[in-house]
Amino acid sequence: MTSKLYELLGADDRRFSPYCWRARLALAHKKLETEYVPVGFTEKDKIAFSGQTQVPVLVDGVSTICDSWDIACYLDDTYADAPTLFGDAVGRATAWFVSCWNETEVFPPLFQLLAADIHAHARPEDQAYFRESREKRLGQSLEQCAEQAPNYLEPFRLSLRPARHVLKHQAFLCGTSPAYADYILFGTFQWARGVSPLAVIKRNDPLHAWRDRMLDLFDGLGRSVTAYDY
Amino acid sequence: MTSKLYELLGADDRRFSPYCWRARLALAHKKLETEYVPVGFTEKDKIAFSGQTQVPVLVDGVSTICDSWDIACYLDDTYADAPTLFGDAVGRATAWFVSCWNETEVFPPLFQLLAADIHAHARPEDQAYFRESREKRLGQSLEQCAEQAPNYLEPFRLSLRPARHVLKHQAFLCGTSPAYADYILFGTFQWARGVSPLAVIKRNDPLHAWRDRMLDLFDGLGRSVTAYDY
Repeated sequence: MTSKLYELLGADDRRFSPYCWRARLALAHKKLETEYVPVGFTEKDKIAFSGQTQVPVLVDGVSTICDSWDIACYLDDTYADAPTLFGDAVGRATAWFVSCWNETEVFPPLFQLLAADIHAHARPEDQAYFRESREKRLGQSLEQCAEQAPNYLEPFRLSLRPARHVLKHQAFLCGTSPAYADYILFGTFQWARGVSPLAVIKRNDPLHAWRDRMLDLFDGLGRSVTAYDY
Repeated sequence: MTSKLYELLGADDRRFSPYCWRARLALAHKKLETEYVPVGFTEKDKIAFSGQTQVPVLVDGVSTICDSWDIACYLDDTYADAPTLFGDAVGRATAWFVSCWNETEVFPPLFQLLAADIHAHARPEDQAYFRESREKRLGQSLEQCAEQAPNYLEPFRLSLRPARHVLKHQAFLCGTSPAYADYILFGTFQWARGVSPLAVIKRNDPLHAWRDRMLDLFDGLGRSVTAYDY
């Protein structure tokens, strides 16, 4: 049976939510046929059945799972015979570390860098909601944010040092082939790629080659949506 | 048969090498009886048989293994029936991420903070060697370094954000019980605790409680050496 992934929808059919990309890749990793159900920022009614207000939401048979981390755990537990996302319990706990690192170190400068671009790539009917909720979070207007955005490029690149260091030793964060920790970081790059033409990583950065390998996975799943190429 | 761990020796029988602590805990995790062989900074002759110049060096039966990461991999492969350090291959790769994070984010500010203290706690006969080699690495004198040390306390504490975030969700970096990623970070705290009375983490930091749990492991192995208490 096809599972349904409710994921964020932007203008021009864009899909740029980093958390939804984690879920997309996790589902592909488990070889599950998936129907993507697009949900604009303000279309909360579409996922009201899930009991909460944010995508991704996965409906798999009789199960409804919210939150990208919980979706990954559900998939690895439920489809234990398909390739593993985490390895065992120790691997899952350590992948949580990578998720936390992404949350505390990588996202903050990147959100500052992208906030105005996300607004520009939201559906017109979602822009007022996005502006209001995010300006509150940022403590400044999107225009002020855009003005200061260039200051966040270098901190973003610096935040990626641990991942860069890992790739000196192995092809993927999870070793010789990709798994969930890779999908965590890849979602971050899909976020940038979905809303901004700015090359957030340099072409000679080992992370660029890694990202290109990630874009190739699952018959180019990461390239299958409207995005900026670099 | 008892294995032998060659580890760094400081003044007053101190053992403060972060990498040697990783090996100590990994051996205890595997329940291996271990003889610790102390090696001062300049006693390279004691480990010349290993073909290189840095501790830790593990001699286990006919095997000699250098480098804390290689030691952990060797132990997990060789003693696969004892509790796992990494979980499976995905877990091992992800633990490598934690090691890289520690290397690129946590060590640099902490080394700046501790360098002069390490010198003060090296054996008198090792101090000239330590000074020369580390002043070269730091690009400044140990005295200049000591003067600027207080500026590195806050960056060090900030560098620990991902670990702090992890501990909101689980008791150890590796989940409900400790494994190698915990030993990586614990070594860092043992380094500080071995040479400086400065409380590098605040008492109300969740990492303080975690560190205390780590000190309790293996009948208080981490407390079994001369160190500063806080």
